[in-house]
Amino acid sequence: MDKKQLAKMIDHTLLKPAKKAHIQQLCAEAREHGFASVCINPAYVKLCASLLQDSDVKVCTVIGFPLGDNTTQTKVYETKNAIKNGASEVDMVINQSWVLGNEWKKVEKEIAAVVKAAKGVTVKVILETCNLNDKQIVKACVASVNAGANFVKTSTGFGKGGATVEAVKLMADTVKEHGLQVKASGGVRTYEDAVAMIEAGATRIGTSNGVAIVEGCK
Amino acid sequence: MDKKQLAKMIDHTLLKPAKKAHIQQLCAEAREHGFASVCINPAYVKLCASLLQDSDVKVCTVIGFPLGDNTTQTKVYETKNAIKNGASEVDMVINQSWVLGNEWKKVEKEIAAVVKAAKGVTVKVILETCNLNDKQIVKACVASVNAGANFVKTSTGFGKGGATVEAVKLMADTVKEHGLQVKASGGVRTYEDAVAMIEAGATRIGTSNGVAIVEGCK
Repeated sequence: MDKKQLAKMIDHTLLKPAKKAHIQQLCAEAREHGFASVCINPAYVKLCASLLQDSDVKVCTVIGFPLGDNTTQTKVYETKNAIKNGASEVDMVINQSWVLGNEWKKVEKEIAAVVKAAKGVTVKVILETCNLNDKQIVKACVASVNAGANFVKTSTGFGKGGATVEAVKLMADTVKEHGLQVKASGGVRTYEDAVAMIEAGATRIGTSNGVAIVEGCK
Repeated sequence: MDKKQLAKMIDHTLLKPAKKAHIQQLCAEAREHGFASVCINPAYVKLCASLLQDSDVKVCTVIGFPLGDNTTQTKVYETKNAIKNGASEVDMVINQSWVLGNEWKKVEKEIAAVVKAAKGVTVKVILETCNLNDKQIVKACVASVNAGANFVKTSTGFGKGGATVEAVKLMADTVKEHGLQVKASGGVRTYEDAVAMIEAGATRIGTSNGVAIVEGCK
């Protein structure tokens, strides 16, 4: 796979506590390699938007992260706040308790509220697939389709497991015909991992190892 | 230690994805044993406030949880939203990136903003001590004192480590003379664990094992 093409599929991610210098390095790397975005916590959106203002690299942040069991109102507020600060993509975590309780109408309504608040900014819905069975993965995908999201995303990277080829396939099979894309994230560490996810149907990779991944490009 | 007295020091905690039935059980147990509060994610505050409205059990929730690197505005919004929904205690996570970057004035200002938004409702500041050295623990305590918080709290329970006797002692030594209390949370599983934390200076225990702890009472 072409190095530039691969880089354009990577959200260069740093969600652990980080000093300004780490974020500056992240943005410099994203610019150098031509990553799709940097993915950082909301408190760093303003800094990244300023560092990347004259580049093609987007600023992606996370909403209700990583547990997802905030109120819908807070997720909506956090989305608007992030966009005001310069975010151009938002990755929201699904309400995991509602998923567990089979409350799919509430799940869908919440995603729709975030999509509405995002006003055209790309919304990715994080399912945290390590906690779901196949049936729940499909239902969460359907809710994301109905709610008008742009992507479904496997994992937060803070759960007990990350992206798997099986989950990505199932998600792609469910959403692709409706025009949604799949982001594989969590545990994607090598070039080979990334290619496996792309072959399974992912069009975006969330990883904190983006530089090594593109440098592993044949 | 007296069973009732111990129960009054426990925040009966469920922060993992949970069905309504789990939350109903949590509230019933809190009522039966006379726990200080139930501690649940923001999306369940309304339900708990309704279930506990004629009891002494408080409704405690978490703000910017568990990473803490949301914007101050979102933490303020989430605090107001939680109180509107019936929360009577809020446990906020410190901005861990600012701690790492030694930006103590920002840390203090943010805590003060949440305290102001809480309008007299008890505010506990979660330090996530497993990520901090002793010097940082003391500085985070001083910021919490200066900002007018009511408690400092060791851990989220989602980090790489929980409460330690050493951290609780250091926190108590730093804040007690200023009238703040210490909550020990994360990994407090047994009656003996709880007693060790109280002897170290904690006046509140956050645990998902409260029933077993009070039943272990001699």
